[in-house]
Amino acid sequence: MADDRPGEFELIRRYFAPLAQDPGSLGLTDDAAVLTPSDGCDLVLTKDVLAANVHFFVDDAPEAIAAKALRVNLSDLAAKGARPRGYLLGLALPADWTVAWLERFCRGLSADQCVYDIQLLGGDTIRSGNGLQVSVTAIGEVDKGKAVRRSGAGAGDLVFVTGTIGDAAAGLQARLDPDFCRAHDLTEEEETRILDRYLLPRPRTGIASCLVAHASAAMDISDGLFADAAHLASASGMDVTLDLAAVPISGALQHLKVKAPDVFGLCLNGGDDYEILAAVPSGQAEAFVRDTADCGTKVTQIGTVAEGDGRVRLVDAAQAFGLEPDGGFRHF
Amino acid sequence: MADDRPGEFELIRRYFAPLAQDPGSLGLTDDAAVLTPSDGCDLVLTKDVLAANVHFFVDDAPEAIAAKALRVNLSDLAAKGARPRGYLLGLALPADWTVAWLERFCRGLSADQCVYDIQLLGGDTIRSGNGLQVSVTAIGEVDKGKAVRRSGAGAGDLVFVTGTIGDAAAGLQARLDPDFCRAHDLTEEEETRILDRYLLPRPRTGIASCLVAHASAAMDISDGLFADAAHLASASGMDVTLDLAAVPISGALQHLKVKAPDVFGLCLNGGDDYEILAAVPSGQAEAFVRDTADCGTKVTQIGTVAEGDGRVRLVDAAQAFGLEPDGGFRHF
Repeated sequence: MADDRPGEFELIRRYFAPLAQDPGSLGLTDDAAVLTPSDGCDLVLTKDVLAANVHFFVDDAPEAIAAKALRVNLSDLAAKGARPRGYLLGLALPADWTVAWLERFCRGLSADQCVYDIQLLGGDTIRSGNGLQVSVTAIGEVDKGKAVRRSGAGAGDLVFVTGTIGDAAAGLQARLDPDFCRAHDLTEEEETRILDRYLLPRPRTGIASCLVAHASAAMDISDGLFADAAHLASASGMDVTLDLAAVPISGALQHLKVKAPDVFGLCLNGGDDYEILAAVPSGQAEAFVRDTADCGTKVTQIGTVAEGDGRVRLVDAAQAFGLEPDGGFRHF
Repeated sequence: MADDRPGEFELIRRYFAPLAQDPGSLGLTDDAAVLTPSDGCDLVLTKDVLAANVHFFVDDAPEAIAAKALRVNLSDLAAKGARPRGYLLGLALPADWTVAWLERFCRGLSADQCVYDIQLLGGDTIRSGNGLQVSVTAIGEVDKGKAVRRSGAGAGDLVFVTGTIGDAAAGLQARLDPDFCRAHDLTEEEETRILDRYLLPRPRTGIASCLVAHASAAMDISDGLFADAAHLASASGMDVTLDLAAVPISGALQHLKVKAPDVFGLCLNGGDDYEILAAVPSGQAEAFVRDTADCGTKVTQIGTVAEGDGRVRLVDAAQAFGLEPDGGFRHF
């Protein structure tokens, strides 16, 4: 069979160069990108690799795969308080890739570049022979010394979370089991919502500056609420107490909580939320809530920080949902 | 079968954190790395993805796979005149990865970190279910505005190349065909040399400052001498004329040139050299040769730059080796 798909250089010229309008990308015609850092800024660098059948389904819309690969990285930048500056893309295409698929993938990148004001700076395309893999390195900037780390939480801080928790994990269950929503009496609207939350993370780039201004520690929630709270607690050398009853949940999760408490418990700690978990000194809490609201993001206090040895404690209702207090989530 | 291999967090703690001594890595315990750029510097960013059975053999020594993944990126930095600053590592491990393999892979990284004075800043490890893939994003620094691009070659410049050309491509042939060296009467020493040149690139980091000081354009040779010369010619909008008789070759290639001119021709443009191709204004040439020699690197003039439309022309002996003048290498 004749292979009339474009080679690497034609791929770059036709599909990737139009995504690379930042002068630092050198139009993707050079060995590397050259970036002039803004005066007085630190660079924040993050890299996530996504693989077919691990992080997404091969039959997901190509636009959505592109968006997810970019957004999980932008979520890391946001959690550090950084403004996105650009990204490099490593794309390992399976043997049976098609031009139509790649066009849609690049349309997904292009749309998100507009949404998040970010440009492609460079990268590499290979034909792997294996399944699709997408590797993104995202570069952000933050005022020098102001990056928000996981390790800064202090005794007396309040713990906040953005948005709602558990929808993406429920969406994954719905994706894996076509009967999931019917079995648990979820409405069509709820089904649509949770499927979408799994497919398309919404990185909280809008509140990056609020985190820099007010948070003592922050991270995004990708591994699961309790697991990630344990990471923050461990990095800060503080105990974090979470009030499960306070964790903000959507109507769909509220529904699950009533109909299937065990499933609810799993989803609440299922990960892929890409919401921000932040510790905020109590004196800053009011301003944090106000400033994030001004940015259109609702935050909810779900816990507190106290002296301790880096553990997470759960209060209220934990046992009812089959949740372990913290044992399973201390990886270090 | 019980799987007693460590999980992601234990992997990071045990194997990768010891490679991350730069404070910017935050000990690999955070969402992202935070890098303070040196005053007055631009950042140079490059990303290459290497896949098993495409860019290396699965039974290559793990140390060599690690070194190759790092070095092909350091070669790009060197070609831009940049000093390596750090790197991010994306590692997709196949289902059957072993602790022993990973320990050796990390020893390879560790050794090269010493050689090239570079630290691991962050990254991501996934289990892909597919073959091994290694994605490296390398970050370098160069004085602001001084990065050496492909596009700066001017009429009258001389074209130089470092080291010798064609060994790695011959080494690949020897790797693919156990009879290759015997068939072409290569000595054991020559066989060892070409196999090693394929396995382990030697990025020319030592002459980065010489390129900044003297070169008008530069790139590393990875796709093949003529193909890459065509990239430089095209980016600069100049014609490049290469004198084949002047291209520096090792004893092994000299041997092939006599015994098997067709094979020699293929190897000469086979790529994976990771030598530097540089255009140098004629007034700077003497200083360029002297300064690179002071850095322990031999450079050889192999051509010239003239007004033109971005083509490569070959003089001397081209037809004898079955080489096309330039038609096949104009990708743009």
